[in-house]
Amino acid sequence: MHVKLTVEYEGTAYHGWQIQPNGPTIQAALEEAAARMFGVRSRMAAAGRTDAGVHAVGQVVCFHLDRPDCDLEEVRRGLDALTPDDIVVRRAELVAEDFDPRRSARSRTYEYRIWNALVPTVVWRRFAWHVRKPLNLPAMSAAAAALLGERDFSSFQAADCDADNPVRRVLRSEIERSAALLTYTITATAFLRHMVRNIVGTLVEVGLGERTPEEFAALIAACDRTLAGPTAPPKGLCLVAVEYDEGEARRA
Amino acid sequence: MHVKLTVEYEGTAYHGWQIQPNGPTIQAALEEAAARMFGVRSRMAAAGRTDAGVHAVGQVVCFHLDRPDCDLEEVRRGLDALTPDDIVVRRAELVAEDFDPRRSARSRTYEYRIWNALVPTVVWRRFAWHVRKPLNLPAMSAAAAALLGERDFSSFQAADCDADNPVRRVLRSEIERSAALLTYTITATAFLRHMVRNIVGTLVEVGLGERTPEEFAALIAACDRTLAGPTAPPKGLCLVAVEYDEGEARRA
Repeated sequence: MHVKLTVEYEGTAYHGWQIQPNGPTIQAALEEAAARMFGVRSRMAAAGRTDAGVHAVGQVVCFHLDRPDCDLEEVRRGLDALTPDDIVVRRAELVAEDFDPRRSARSRTYEYRIWNALVPTVVWRRFAWHVRKPLNLPAMSAAAAALLGERDFSSFQAADCDADNPVRRVLRSEIERSAALLTYTITATAFLRHMVRNIVGTLVEVGLGERTPEEFAALIAACDRTLAGPTAPPKGLCLVAVEYDEGEARRA
Repeated sequence: MHVKLTVEYEGTAYHGWQIQPNGPTIQAALEEAAARMFGVRSRMAAAGRTDAGVHAVGQVVCFHLDRPDCDLEEVRRGLDALTPDDIVVRRAELVAEDFDPRRSARSRTYEYRIWNALVPTVVWRRFAWHVRKPLNLPAMSAAAAALLGERDFSSFQAADCDADNPVRRVLRSEIERSAALLTYTITATAFLRHMVRNIVGTLVEVGLGERTPEEFAALIAACDRTLAGPTAPPKGLCLVAVEYDEGEARRA
């Protein structure tokens, strides 16, 4: 059995998705839960390796399970019960043996939240970046729209990113406001390391009037990381969904 | 100087507003911050004594300060900096000497959040009650509307409530849904102990089909606490605002 899980987590207490020599990770917590439940250790593969402090509501995780008669809702409930409260296993499905959560993905969607008010809020303090000065939303929206399409995103790539090819296709890039809460949503075929956080750090500079939307567009074209703004803090970022083509999942 | 603070807090880690012999409280945290800032201990009075685990985004707190030349934004910033991250001092204003945050209040508004889905969510886990079974929103709305007006709310009073008079006027009582998140909003002249949580526990029984809206209305009229549903957990409750008449606050 090849099982696909849809997993939600608050990243605050974790050193990211991937197992680390020191410090708790989401992968370690899930693999330990599966080891306790099934008596054997299975390697879990995720669609996206979220960084330390980054959250997910729609991470996709796959693992092999040698239990052909296993009930999937029992798998879901068991893994959910055996992981801490800040990890929730939302769904368990059967998928084809060759389904790869990362390579089979058509696109990913991330949200980045900003609490834009003089005073912070306790409600969103773990899930939003607090920016005190007022942000110009139309300017940020104009800049965000300049990211759409297939482009070389070297300007927003982390210095230590080892991607061979920095070209990605951005399908959606928009920002909306609900009172003091700004939510930036970006969907792309794939992302470079720190790409969303580097984009948001630079969009905030546009919102503060430190760059114009035209300068933002020119920055993309320059393909030079040293020109972009700072990396926004991880706590505002959330992996919302991973999209696959219909038929990728074979139901039991 | 009589100072009015508007305070936000996540109640998760606290034994409620009021100072307790053992366990941290919001009042203790604020009084300690003021003592550190001004060198003297001031007693802080709140508009509503929220219970253990209950949150606030608009609690109103007053205290006397013998510093006529003090800058209010400095007071706000100092108290905010000296309290833990789960307490935020949003505003500081001058008010008349006879302003009493509780007695001068015209009404209070509370919100109660329910996460209504099979699977919980990490995003709202500290601020919403997770109810797995689907809730019938129109039935709950009909029941909620029956609370409007001036009534004897003995049916929703905690057993240990020491109010002399259980009559309160409910000005707003409505429930709305945004995907899996239900928010119940209630405004009343004042509240009895556990009143909102007892109402919500009973509204959920209506939503589950265990009571009809008509039975809910009859329950109010019965004025008998033993007939109402269970007390909803504190984490879904939030004191949103305390309303005062114009002119109650004298600006500096």
